[in-house]
Amino acid sequence: MVGIPDGLVQSLEDIATRLRIESIRATTAAGSGHPTSSASAADLVAATFFAAMRLDPDDPRSPASDRFVLSKGHAAPLLYAVWAELGVLQRADLTTLRGLDSDLEGHPTPRLPFVDVATGSLGQGLSVGVGLALGARKLGSDARVFVLLGDGETAEGSVWEAAQMAGHERLANLVGIVDVNGLGQSGPTMLDHDLRAYQRRFAAFGWRAVTLDGHDMRQIVPAVRRARQSRRTPTVLIARTIKGKGIEGVEGKEGWHGKPLPPDAAERVIAALEARLHHVPPPPVHKPARRRLPLLSPMPTPPPPAYGEIATREAYGDALVRLGAADPRVLALDGDVKNSTYAERFRDAYPDRFIEAYIAEQNMVSTAAGLAAQHFIPFASSFACFLTRAADQLRMAAISRSNIKLCGSHAGVSIGEDGPSQMALEDLALFRALPESVVLYPADGTAADACVQLAGVHRGLAYIRTTRMKTPALYGADEEFAVGGLKVLRAGAYDVLTIVAAGITLHEALAAHDELIGLDIPVRVVDLYCVKPVAAEALLAAARATAHRMLVVEDHYTEGGLGDAVREAVSEEGVIVHHLAVREIPHSGPPRKLLERYGIGRGAIVTAARKLAESEVGAAATSAMKSPTPGSA
Amino acid sequence: MVGIPDGLVQSLEDIATRLRIESIRATTAAGSGHPTSSASAADLVAATFFAAMRLDPDDPRSPASDRFVLSKGHAAPLLYAVWAELGVLQRADLTTLRGLDSDLEGHPTPRLPFVDVATGSLGQGLSVGVGLALGARKLGSDARVFVLLGDGETAEGSVWEAAQMAGHERLANLVGIVDVNGLGQSGPTMLDHDLRAYQRRFAAFGWRAVTLDGHDMRQIVPAVRRARQSRRTPTVLIARTIKGKGIEGVEGKEGWHGKPLPPDAAERVIAALEARLHHVPPPPVHKPARRRLPLLSPMPTPPPPAYGEIATREAYGDALVRLGAADPRVLALDGDVKNSTYAERFRDAYPDRFIEAYIAEQNMVSTAAGLAAQHFIPFASSFACFLTRAADQLRMAAISRSNIKLCGSHAGVSIGEDGPSQMALEDLALFRALPESVVLYPADGTAADACVQLAGVHRGLAYIRTTRMKTPALYGADEEFAVGGLKVLRAGAYDVLTIVAAGITLHEALAAHDELIGLDIPVRVVDLYCVKPVAAEALLAAARATAHRMLVVEDHYTEGGLGDAVREAVSEEGVIVHHLAVREIPHSGPPRKLLERYGIGRGAIVTAARKLAESEVGAAATSAMKSPTPGSA
Repeated sequence: MVGIPDGLVQSLEDIATRLRIESIRATTAAGSGHPTSSASAADLVAATFFAAMRLDPDDPRSPASDRFVLSKGHAAPLLYAVWAELGVLQRADLTTLRGLDSDLEGHPTPRLPFVDVATGSLGQGLSVGVGLALGARKLGSDARVFVLLGDGETAEGSVWEAAQMAGHERLANLVGIVDVNGLGQSGPTMLDHDLRAYQRRFAAFGWRAVTLDGHDMRQIVPAVRRARQSRRTPTVLIARTIKGKGIEGVEGKEGWHGKPLPPDAAERVIAALEARLHHVPPPPVHKPARRRLPLLSPMPTPPPPAYGEIATREAYGDALVRLGAADPRVLALDGDVKNSTYAERFRDAYPDRFIEAYIAEQNMVSTAAGLAAQHFIPFASSFACFLTRAADQLRMAAISRSNIKLCGSHAGVSIGEDGPSQMALEDLALFRALPESVVLYPADGTAADACVQLAGVHRGLAYIRTTRMKTPALYGADEEFAVGGLKVLRAGAYDVLTIVAAGITLHEALAAHDELIGLDIPVRVVDLYCVKPVAAEALLAAARATAHRMLVVEDHYTEGGLGDAVREAVSEEGVIVHHLAVREIPHSGPPRKLLERYGIGRGAIVTAARKLAESEVGAAATSAMKSPTPGSA
Repeated sequence: MVGIPDGLVQSLEDIATRLRIESIRATTAAGSGHPTSSASAADLVAATFFAAMRLDPDDPRSPASDRFVLSKGHAAPLLYAVWAELGVLQRADLTTLRGLDSDLEGHPTPRLPFVDVATGSLGQGLSVGVGLALGARKLGSDARVFVLLGDGETAEGSVWEAAQMAGHERLANLVGIVDVNGLGQSGPTMLDHDLRAYQRRFAAFGWRAVTLDGHDMRQIVPAVRRARQSRRTPTVLIARTIKGKGIEGVEGKEGWHGKPLPPDAAERVIAALEARLHHVPPPPVHKPARRRLPLLSPMPTPPPPAYGEIATREAYGDALVRLGAADPRVLALDGDVKNSTYAERFRDAYPDRFIEAYIAEQNMVSTAAGLAAQHFIPFASSFACFLTRAADQLRMAAISRSNIKLCGSHAGVSIGEDGPSQMALEDLALFRALPESVVLYPADGTAADACVQLAGVHRGLAYIRTTRMKTPALYGADEEFAVGGLKVLRAGAYDVLTIVAAGITLHEALAAHDELIGLDIPVRVVDLYCVKPVAAEALLAAARATAHRMLVVEDHYTEGGLGDAVREAVSEEGVIVHHLAVREIPHSGPPRKLLERYGIGRGAIVTAARKLAESEVGAAATSAMKSPTPGSA
């Protein structure tokens, strides 16, 4: 082992001391926050930033720059302090922590230029790191990615999904650092200070795993430098630390998680820390070598083919191939169902741009967020029901305004025989409730293709819901679609009702329309292919044209889907909205029979429309009886 | 190693052959399903049921009986075949697989007496097994739990959450069996047939891990028997198998996942399998020793104390202690936030009935489902936003009609400084969209207490949403609450608007009410403490009394919460519903300021109500101008 010069050790120790001081000062000023979780990792962070990383403080999101992910997001004060140390933040601003008008939020968000993806829901950072590292590799950058994890958060399974992916992909450019302070929020962690247990686990997942004293610069510096040089495997540094290190009276004690020091105690502790300073100036920041990385520039996508009868999931695969041809930033990920989601078409066309994420949806989504932070446009797909596995990762991606695209296939009871565990009936509820999300639900091949193109162009999180079974063509190749749009497919001057549907139920609604015509019940039919943002004005216009009466039909549970979207759009105008949706736990069975059994097939729509039309006539008759015309008595 | 008698080997081989035959026959009859995934595990399952387990076919859910969890739920035909072999199903019924009127669904559900929790979303079974095993131990039963996993599903992080919990709790009564056939749905698994890699991983998580040939009864029988005898650690058998084993022309081939054999091929393969039968009768089923297990019978819960100003999360903790005193079946689990959710009160009162689930919410929820299958009533708590981590597990628990209770604390922007990653703003959307769920959202201590008691008594999944900050008392100790209820807290004969709120926003609505009274705008205020099932009739009655005008206010995103619940209840009557909710990604800041900034505080309510009242007057005036009374022209 090469010795580390005393000057460097002292300089790094001084940085760590200042990081502790700023963390204490900021949290005391805020009256909340996590000084002890910051203090345990201060030495590790100081050495990582100033003795190992090559980064460009002026352009922290450059693919050439090393990245740092604070997976233990509650140590935000430490992160802010180190970026102040780098000159990116003003030191004086650190005490605005957690304020209403400060970007220094309680947990890091990408409002800050050096935060790639929001953290604060534990166990997600390593997957983000996997995405950043995969992205760097794809770009030919030799930048490295450092992820600081808490020990408690390694209890999250998502950490092991990330670990296995990094091991499988041999991401030598990824470095994990586990801050083993032995204390969780409410008590000791499961493994306490058993560094060997962590080491065995990471080693079993294909990592080089190194144990060390997380407060000894002479151990940290060579370890983190060697980790940066790894050529074959990802490296994890498993560091024994003390929670609250450097904070007298609090070091290693339970009951101090997420608690700021009272002002007087803070002053005393800061004075003691200041007394420890060697007053050695910080080492220079190592900037990355200037290298030209490939410019990935999109071209316009050629016009779509004429789609015939096709499952929207299959059209998704074809459309993604077309988008991929035009835009080299587009990548695809899939959770070992690529032959069902048709992501395999993309894999076959661009094997280098396809990532098999295996059956680990949480990691798939956070990896996608990491790739998006390297300026890629990742499309991640699985059965729609299994995307719920990553609900928390999707939530964090939405908070991060991450530019990721999701496709969920096999929506609803119309998948048939596989049964309820495979039927996505709550995916629209999940994706609608993500802030700023776009939710698309095409009903034919052309619409599915358009949705893929719309999702690709939209900046932010977009979801596409596809259907298992084939559906006939509804639109010509030149039909135009838009985020926030809808299509009125059937309309007449005497429509008594607007039927709103999407995906599989749109075809049921169209069949019902034809049957209702025969019964002299003219109805309007709307394809709500964009569920969010919803075309409120157009829905209201349709409602007004049909006596303020609507019927929504969807292959989804009652809550959170199309029905709620429509009601949200029209409820300020007192529109009467009836709703056909799946109202019980469904059963296995043939798709067509299930549509009728759960009351969302053409038969159920006809029955509902007839009943509504009759009650309408009845109401009119009743009303007529109640207000007789003058002279009729 | 003790030799296994030839007769037993042949008898078990015959069972395995019959399991293969029935799996092929049923899937071919159904025209879909997974014969090859069934075939790879047939030998393992035959030996487990007939050479190791002690089970009571007449009472498979008895705590005295060994349990079997088919984590790889797509091998359902194999499971059904083995229960036919045990005489619980009619062999002739096996070919009703996947039919609309058959309980033999595509993936197992607890419609069947021998299925504890639905499977089919991979990677959840081991956690269910953890719950079943913990439950058996708590009951003093020496029953064992066997979980059959696919190799592909071990990529799910939830498997490692379960593995670490089992290792940490030293669940010697838990046996995992990994069917390593090397093939996933769409290609080879990440680890192929690398048994040692699986062994290293499980060993690192505290298991005794044994590798073996999964088609050799002379290896399987002693391994599974020894696993059943373990006294110190959980055991996992890592079995090398061949997908489609015994199906000529398909064995070990890609492209055969989830595909039935065509009828002619099935006939040929079945004939070949039949030719291999030794025609040795099956061994007797080993029944569990009859032991009296403790009867856990509830008594009535004593009346609640008089709650003063208190955070509902704190009242949750106190109420759970009261419920626990009356009902010995009640357990609590928490994800290392017990000092925030106040589950620590329960831990302090009944340490033996508290399970620290650490930061692993997926495992926490599925473990709860396993405990419920041992007839316990588990209450699992965390920050509400982190329960989204277990969305898929909750989905499967709901499909299973599992009797589990969830409590999510720290709802909404009103948590303040910690920022958006810690604010649950989509939890109501998640829980409302679970079929048959009950969703409760109390606004004071008494209501929180009542919600805990209601959840405890309700049979099925119930969710309680609690608030971080203290709120004043609204109800006396003798107030009665009900699932499906609401409270009208303010009402007058001239109310122009019904304000619907719950939790923190109810207090804002009440403050707004008082201010509006001063402005001569009388409003009705409803506490919608039960968000699902929603009190539709009572909401309609309130709407009718206030000119069909409502204003819903909630600390949740626009989608999927209170607003959608109210609109769903009243939209068939054309009620005008206005809605105040969080419409953007929120920021860190002081709670009160955030309530106003995101438009859900008392100020925003007053403004909205005034605007509505004015437009009402305006509309009336306009309407008056349009229809002048006769003679006024």
